[in-house]
Amino acid sequence: MKITILGNSSGGPFHGRHYTAQALQLDAHLFLIDCGEGTQMQIHQHKVKADRCKQLFITHLHGDHVFGLMGLITNWCLKKRETPLTLFSPPGLRELIETTIRVCGVKMTYPLEFVEVDASVSHLAFENNQLEVWTIPLNHRSPTSGWLFREKPKPLNIRPEAIAEFNLEGNIEAFKAAKAGKDVVLPDGAVIPNAAITLPPLSLRSYAFCSDTAPSEKVIETVRGVDLLYHEATFCDEHLEEAAISFHSTARQAAEVARAAGVGRLLLGHFSGRYTDETRHLAEAQEVFKETFVGTEGSDWLI
Amino acid sequence: MKITILGNSSGGPFHGRHYTAQALQLDAHLFLIDCGEGTQMQIHQHKVKADRCKQLFITHLHGDHVFGLMGLITNWCLKKRETPLTLFSPPGLRELIETTIRVCGVKMTYPLEFVEVDASVSHLAFENNQLEVWTIPLNHRSPTSGWLFREKPKPLNIRPEAIAEFNLEGNIEAFKAAKAGKDVVLPDGAVIPNAAITLPPLSLRSYAFCSDTAPSEKVIETVRGVDLLYHEATFCDEHLEEAAISFHSTARQAAEVARAAGVGRLLLGHFSGRYTDETRHLAEAQEVFKETFVGTEGSDWLI
Repeated sequence: MKITILGNSSGGPFHGRHYTAQALQLDAHLFLIDCGEGTQMQIHQHKVKADRCKQLFITHLHGDHVFGLMGLITNWCLKKRETPLTLFSPPGLRELIETTIRVCGVKMTYPLEFVEVDASVSHLAFENNQLEVWTIPLNHRSPTSGWLFREKPKPLNIRPEAIAEFNLEGNIEAFKAAKAGKDVVLPDGAVIPNAAITLPPLSLRSYAFCSDTAPSEKVIETVRGVDLLYHEATFCDEHLEEAAISFHSTARQAAEVARAAGVGRLLLGHFSGRYTDETRHLAEAQEVFKETFVGTEGSDWLI
Repeated sequence: MKITILGNSSGGPFHGRHYTAQALQLDAHLFLIDCGEGTQMQIHQHKVKADRCKQLFITHLHGDHVFGLMGLITNWCLKKRETPLTLFSPPGLRELIETTIRVCGVKMTYPLEFVEVDASVSHLAFENNQLEVWTIPLNHRSPTSGWLFREKPKPLNIRPEAIAEFNLEGNIEAFKAAKAGKDVVLPDGAVIPNAAITLPPLSLRSYAFCSDTAPSEKVIETVRGVDLLYHEATFCDEHLEEAAISFHSTARQAAEVARAAGVGRLLLGHFSGRYTDETRHLAEAQEVFKETFVGTEGSDWLI
């Protein structure tokens, strides 16, 4: 699972930063998350294979998270894309996009599907054979949903030595049961515990994307134990009050969420244009949660 | 009069090019023309004082000319702009922008005014004390209006020597008449021709912006004699047929328009992503019209 940061700015195109967008790649699948103005330029700049994207997840309809969508959708038409695209978001996106398509005379070459989610609770929004995507209820000024990507359990692998040990050669039923995590019943009636036959399960990777939000208990509950948490960190301690008023977070608050949720690593982003760099964000967050990193544009994060 | 090229790409964010946008500055006035995705980044990048813009001119509603508008309008709200903004365009822009404002919850801090123009004829769309802006009927797939900026005549200047020569000291009426271009009647009834009292009028500067369009007689008529003509040159000779099908122009066709209209200089732009540079555009156009230049992004053109 690879996350690529395409944009990490909140307020504007300052200090070389771009508006929020990320790509998540898992084998052949590529998902885009948020799509601020300039996302298609950033996709091109960082050589992200976004043309294969079939699912795009929008947290909310504030312009800095969505104004790149019209250009991306239109540009795929110029490339004669035929693959359907599903857009997941809180309500409203359909009207915005369909109005744009009609008024601007966009000649669609592929179907668009809109899936409206309930941003007030965590629920399953999408799944394929490899992963599930859940909503994360964020606490912002408009209905806003974070996105939690959880890898699904894979069939267990058989320990090669177990085949001879328990005389399993050709016993298809036993293989099936073992791979599905069940204990195995041998022809003589003996029961072999699953753990004796299979290798320990691979850990299931997970990524949580939380932007924009004030610090929230609901977020902590929903993202508990994820490998990597992206949490907005618009402000530093100095602007704590401004963070509260605007339903955003400071870097320290993001770190407190990460610590409370027991995540593996924390990735910061959505920086206000008032900061020329992210040194203070990082320092303040690391006082609370050591495994904190800055989501620099163009950087890749492997899980 | 200074033109700054903010973007010169047609199809996408390729080869470092950005979507169409230009700024025209005349003393304290700044006008923006077209506003493709990324325009606010380009404004920032090239240090254009766009915050003073009160009139913005859109040629047509295809995304590559308009998808930067939502971000720009929103960003001015974050800066707490209070100055009204007037948007000139063919019909449709109001619905696009008002839907975006409503769906995306943009809290407007300044009034927007929409002026819909008839893109089928040349008519006066705007004037202030310094200039007039006329529509230019372009020949594209949707209603598309170019924009012709014409400086207004200024009061004539009095030749300093004429004051003693004709004993005009203190003769306010004579000064007024002369500055307004009229002949002057002296107290003794003698009539002094205007040209004997005033300096020759300063030439009136003019700029024509024509994107997107197939070559057009109407354009030639409307832009006749302008100092600087920006004309789209999406394609080279090699793709003449594609230009015709898509109602665009080749660089050579742009040069033919410039020659037929007897303009001072020709500026090319709106280059297709298939060309990595504009060498061929320039060479092919200069075979027809020597005073042709490439509208490189960030370049300024003084008139």
